[in-house]
Amino acid sequence: MHQLRKPYLLFLGDVTLKSDAKTAFGLRDWCADAVLGEWSLPAATVSLGLPRLSPQQAAQQGAGSLVVGVAAVGGALPEHWLAELEAALDAGLDIVSGQHSRLSAFPRLVQAAQRSGARLIDVRHSDQTFPAGSGRKRSGQRVLTVGTDCALGKKYTALALAQALQKQGAAATFRATGQTGVMIAGEGVAIDAVISDFVAGAAEQLSPDNAPGHWDVIEGQGALFHPAYAGVTLGLLHGSQPDALVLCHDPARQTIEGYPGYPIPDLQVAIDRYVEAGRLTNPAVRCVGISINSSSLSDVEWDAYASRLRSQLQLPVVDPMRGGVDAIAKALLQA
Amino acid sequence: MHQLRKPYLLFLGDVTLKSDAKTAFGLRDWCADAVLGEWSLPAATVSLGLPRLSPQQAAQQGAGSLVVGVAAVGGALPEHWLAELEAALDAGLDIVSGQHSRLSAFPRLVQAAQRSGARLIDVRHSDQTFPAGSGRKRSGQRVLTVGTDCALGKKYTALALAQALQKQGAAATFRATGQTGVMIAGEGVAIDAVISDFVAGAAEQLSPDNAPGHWDVIEGQGALFHPAYAGVTLGLLHGSQPDALVLCHDPARQTIEGYPGYPIPDLQVAIDRYVEAGRLTNPAVRCVGISINSSSLSDVEWDAYASRLRSQLQLPVVDPMRGGVDAIAKALLQA
Repeated sequence: MHQLRKPYLLFLGDVTLKSDAKTAFGLRDWCADAVLGEWSLPAATVSLGLPRLSPQQAAQQGAGSLVVGVAAVGGALPEHWLAELEAALDAGLDIVSGQHSRLSAFPRLVQAAQRSGARLIDVRHSDQTFPAGSGRKRSGQRVLTVGTDCALGKKYTALALAQALQKQGAAATFRATGQTGVMIAGEGVAIDAVISDFVAGAAEQLSPDNAPGHWDVIEGQGALFHPAYAGVTLGLLHGSQPDALVLCHDPARQTIEGYPGYPIPDLQVAIDRYVEAGRLTNPAVRCVGISINSSSLSDVEWDAYASRLRSQLQLPVVDPMRGGVDAIAKALLQA
Repeated sequence: MHQLRKPYLLFLGDVTLKSDAKTAFGLRDWCADAVLGEWSLPAATVSLGLPRLSPQQAAQQGAGSLVVGVAAVGGALPEHWLAELEAALDAGLDIVSGQHSRLSAFPRLVQAAQRSGARLIDVRHSDQTFPAGSGRKRSGQRVLTVGTDCALGKKYTALALAQALQKQGAAATFRATGQTGVMIAGEGVAIDAVISDFVAGAAEQLSPDNAPGHWDVIEGQGALFHPAYAGVTLGLLHGSQPDALVLCHDPARQTIEGYPGYPIPDLQVAIDRYVEAGRLTNPAVRCVGISINSSSLSDVEWDAYASRLRSQLQLPVVDPMRGGVDAIAKALLQA
């Protein structure tokens, strides 16, 4: 389980495309309280609109980590970023990275970390060993976001739902299972990086026993209908033992992204399959709502689509970006 | 993908319980042609009934690897085995181990391997990186053994079925997905040791495109009804894209082994769930037979049980240890 030291300094390298800084924007938006500022190289043209702080200044203001908030081209850290990262380590900041290449592959960074005692943390990788799943029922309540595909709002929905539950007075914790989620929460597991035998066990550890009224809001991964990642999804579902599921969907998608031969399932079929699979470790699991990424729809289209779905499925239908997820939080707390 | 060098010398350490030498007996029985002999320490009381050969003698007779054929207590190699393993490396033999602890954790072995150029191979681990699954349909035919639980005959059934298909004149290859299977086949992947994101991709690589009439007989892992390992099972099922499934079952088992709260599913339910899941990557998948581990039944009980199941499920029902799997091989070739 990754445990990160907040608050963060967000590092943007020499980014020139906003889309390459998705992680940094996500952190700015979802853990604003834990972000002190941003830092970048002179060639960068994208800013988060936060105070500019050098690693040394950020350390003086109490920062715990410098987070690499941009996707490096090809997944490898460019050589010319290393001086800044080394300076951060020397100032006592941990470096947190979600790149494919490991920070420990750079001897300069390893040496600097040894000098200062700061840590190199690759949230995309998981070096921890986990026990196998136990199947033991845990106390507390759990809701898991699941999807008709990857990358259509499962993390965003879980973050919004945890906030909405808290706003309605419930105790709720966002549980991160992907690299950006781990950075936002400051802890969690990149579940798709865990050795397959231990995925359910890692999911069990991620949401331990809790108070009866407490909700863990668990970030889903993959999709049961995905030819590459369904196994990850199933292990996470079984280990999470959710009491409730929220199904995430993008009506603009006809087939699984990158897999043109694989159609997106009908929503009722998707609900039935997730509930059927989830019953193994929690016979009481139910779907409590639908979260739609409706960015392809006009307001009029969205209204028509949402009300059609509501009457078809007899469930709350929301878009976190269009009116929020309160209806689902309410359904969770009423049940 | 592990690639082992045959033929083997089987090393028994100082084993005194036959059950601790399960791997060695399995290799003796299933790849007799590739086993030159056995070797053990003076304290060993179990023998495979094979010629006794020292590592040097085995190397002279053309052996490629010394296989550690016993389970070491606690999963770690005992210190007093190392001299024999070092001698084997010095004689040019690879060492193949299925223990939890890695061979490379022993500097003596690493140095000996460097001296001779021989390899240290931990079949329980997987250091290879695999691509994500593609979902692309491959040529050739595939049958996968699946189960109502773990450890009830999926490997044994797959080995027997590959032999039965060959005997009936078909081209067939056993594809190993577990450590003992990999040792028997001389190649394969310990699929439960693969990072979860790449399980389906590893399964795709394990049974590549093949001639239209060729059958890959793929060793199954875990069970869809297992609270810890169902994700591994699903990833393997999706990546294998089987045309046919053989369901393995032990009628003496009431609950998942080690998970008393988890009942073994009804056989028709199990068939339906495996076929439903398998349809994602091969819509034509069907269950072609049931393989029973009937060791708990008398001959009379077995006859009654098997004929009841046959009429209930309308499928061939076999026990590989009691009459073989020819009926399932025939069903595969007729379809």
